[in-house]
Amino acid sequence: MSATRTMRLGAFLYATGHHIAAWRHPSAQADSGFDIDHYIRVAQSCERAGFDLLFLEDGSGVREADLNIASHSARAAHFEPVSLLAALAVQTSRIGLVGTVSTSYHEPYHVARTIASLDHLSGGRAGWNLVTSQSDLEAQNFGLTGQRLHADRYARAEEFVEVVQALWDSYDDDAIVEDCENARYYDEARLRRISHKGAHFSVRGPLNVIRTPQGHPVIVQAGASESGLTLASRSADVVFAAAQTLEEGQRYYRDLKRRVREAGRRPEDLLVMPGIFAVAGTSRAEAEERFEQLQELIDPEVGVRLLFQHLGVAVPANLALDEPLPANLLQTNGNRSRQQLLLDLAARERLTVRELYRKVAGARGHWQVVGTAQDIADQMQERFEHEAADGFNIMPPTLPGGLDDFIERVLPELQRRGLWRPQQGSTLRESLGLPRPARKSVSAA
Amino acid sequence: MSATRTMRLGAFLYATGHHIAAWRHPSAQADSGFDIDHYIRVAQSCERAGFDLLFLEDGSGVREADLNIASHSARAAHFEPVSLLAALAVQTSRIGLVGTVSTSYHEPYHVARTIASLDHLSGGRAGWNLVTSQSDLEAQNFGLTGQRLHADRYARAEEFVEVVQALWDSYDDDAIVEDCENARYYDEARLRRISHKGAHFSVRGPLNVIRTPQGHPVIVQAGASESGLTLASRSADVVFAAAQTLEEGQRYYRDLKRRVREAGRRPEDLLVMPGIFAVAGTSRAEAEERFEQLQELIDPEVGVRLLFQHLGVAVPANLALDEPLPANLLQTNGNRSRQQLLLDLAARERLTVRELYRKVAGARGHWQVVGTAQDIADQMQERFEHEAADGFNIMPPTLPGGLDDFIERVLPELQRRGLWRPQQGSTLRESLGLPRPARKSVSAA
Repeated sequence: MSATRTMRLGAFLYATGHHIAAWRHPSAQADSGFDIDHYIRVAQSCERAGFDLLFLEDGSGVREADLNIASHSARAAHFEPVSLLAALAVQTSRIGLVGTVSTSYHEPYHVARTIASLDHLSGGRAGWNLVTSQSDLEAQNFGLTGQRLHADRYARAEEFVEVVQALWDSYDDDAIVEDCENARYYDEARLRRISHKGAHFSVRGPLNVIRTPQGHPVIVQAGASESGLTLASRSADVVFAAAQTLEEGQRYYRDLKRRVREAGRRPEDLLVMPGIFAVAGTSRAEAEERFEQLQELIDPEVGVRLLFQHLGVAVPANLALDEPLPANLLQTNGNRSRQQLLLDLAARERLTVRELYRKVAGARGHWQVVGTAQDIADQMQERFEHEAADGFNIMPPTLPGGLDDFIERVLPELQRRGLWRPQQGSTLRESLGLPRPARKSVSAA
Repeated sequence: MSATRTMRLGAFLYATGHHIAAWRHPSAQADSGFDIDHYIRVAQSCERAGFDLLFLEDGSGVREADLNIASHSARAAHFEPVSLLAALAVQTSRIGLVGTVSTSYHEPYHVARTIASLDHLSGGRAGWNLVTSQSDLEAQNFGLTGQRLHADRYARAEEFVEVVQALWDSYDDDAIVEDCENARYYDEARLRRISHKGAHFSVRGPLNVIRTPQGHPVIVQAGASESGLTLASRSADVVFAAAQTLEEGQRYYRDLKRRVREAGRRPEDLLVMPGIFAVAGTSRAEAEERFEQLQELIDPEVGVRLLFQHLGVAVPANLALDEPLPANLLQTNGNRSRQQLLLDLAARERLTVRELYRKVAGARGHWQVVGTAQDIADQMQERFEHEAADGFNIMPPTLPGGLDDFIERVLPELQRRGLWRPQQGSTLRESLGLPRPARKSVSAA
């Protein structure tokens, strides 16, 4: 392990906070959903603290069929992430800006453009979290009756990212010559169409955005299914993984790095940054008390629906909250990897439905640590030093309160231990220590 | 004519300026295409000057098949407009922000979201310029071999805007109750799906953005064909029309206002704001000299291609630059209205190909005035007071120089005459004097 290897840290900003009941807690701002000043304050605070990036989730619709249930939480509606990041780009100067855009109901030309535009707007700080949409409710906003099959979604995503990368390579870095004298704005020999024809897309190109400061904006993925891992090993720069235990994390990390090698890339070209839902207190008792306050605020209907959304199946009739989950819940078209994590967790800890939804309500299937700054740093250090993580995506329980706690308590402890230092580098790739991709040659395009 | 009726003014920002050779002129910034600081400076300068809105054009691709020809101008590549406007939203505080998004290759759910997001980001200053895409080159970026037929494009656009407006009405203005005590974030009775099923789109809803400050962001259109006029009369708040002469402008204005009345709306609910390409000098001679400088910078290949792009037909073989246009050029699937304007202009003034492309190279089919501030104000006043315009979309020949000239010379003259006053109102609708739409009742949705 190199002495200079340090953790990369992202701040995953999610509505009023990651805990489902965050908006009811005094350390969150309940009406922050459409308050741009709130987002600017939080982004600037993350930048001052030295995070490498901000991370924004997204969905292409209200992902709760029962509007009565949806009305119990603050998550139905939110800013569209790429335009929000564009606004934050001109109110910050160093922090990376990663937004989620689904490959399921967008066109690659549009996505290549908006993310490339964001990279120019921000001086090379853009990232794209590539996801596939996995709810029927989103599909129904785009002319379909239900989501596509898992395999189809990934086949589409794989071709999608190929097209996007080819479009990002439409121009050489030095294609713009601005030769006023000879009326040549760019050198046409350094620009090309992509003429892509595939099973899902046919795209002529070139992109109407020149090559960006990062060459390719950073690509983030989260998939952990077989097809998700294959896709990530070929095209992701960062993987935002979910792992409950050190062993799970290690298995995932080693498997993915092996696949990266097999795909002809260097293992360090893909960073594994698992999510961590951290509640940081001045003492363990204080941290636990704060977490318990949040847990007490969960509306049982909301808790149950959130759990079954994560499981990707309908809520069974006559569900008993204080019994284990009914058997035979697995279905195969949803987010398989997260579903399996939850079922494993329920089995391992013999949880009732109520206990399980309380587990999901904060970390939503991600790793959860409640304790002092030392406790949290210990656990992060263990995973960082033992092949389970190259960094972490911090999921504050509430915003801004839970984020401030992490910044004030945990970051100084990580820095004191030499595990982390504030973000450096003028582009996101530089901050993350990732190489700037060369433009692919014509024959490879 | 009410004594208090004043012109609305938009600033149409286009690359290095509207003149095709602007980038070669010292009053433009050649490398401004991806310079966010340039756009911030220009936007703030427009806001200080009192413009009601900024207007950004868009295309879904490089709209020149021959990359050699494209390389002679600065227009192939530019920022994606909605994310650019989101960045400008947080660097300005009063000016309206209108971005072009085509209905041809987007999904209404995405467009409803991003424009609604921009309205929240900007505190009610968003506008959407609804266009249909009209080049085969754009179609080929989205899996098609060529553009759809004119009638199909408009049928799609008509249903598209219906869906977008219904999605903007997903929530009541007061749907968010934030009742922490009772775990009710919003009142589900004030939220609904739209359950749209039509020939082109099937969209469940609701939108995942709450109702915006303006209720509906401002809708701008430019269509002047029969289907374009019908669409505008039903759904547009502003029409950005092209008219060469007072008489053409009056015919258009009266026809459209009549259609608006027939569609059951008040004529003042739709503002006609024609484009004006104005070159403002301290004397006529100076203005003409400056314009001639620009004209001299036109590369003939670029001029010819631009002209034929506007005509929507291929460049004929053996085209003689100093002869009139060949006969029988009209084709019926392009932008019919602009095509006809050009053919009318060529016939009226008996122009050669070279003379005609020189006409197009600046105003691109819009109205062009070269003269002193008095000359320009006289002509604007005539159209404003004689039923040809409710305001204008100013097309600076170069950016920032040509815009600064207009601001310094023409605006004070318009204000002195009582024809115009700096933008007032905290939302774009308020600035334009447009009513805030009530949410449509369920039965009407």
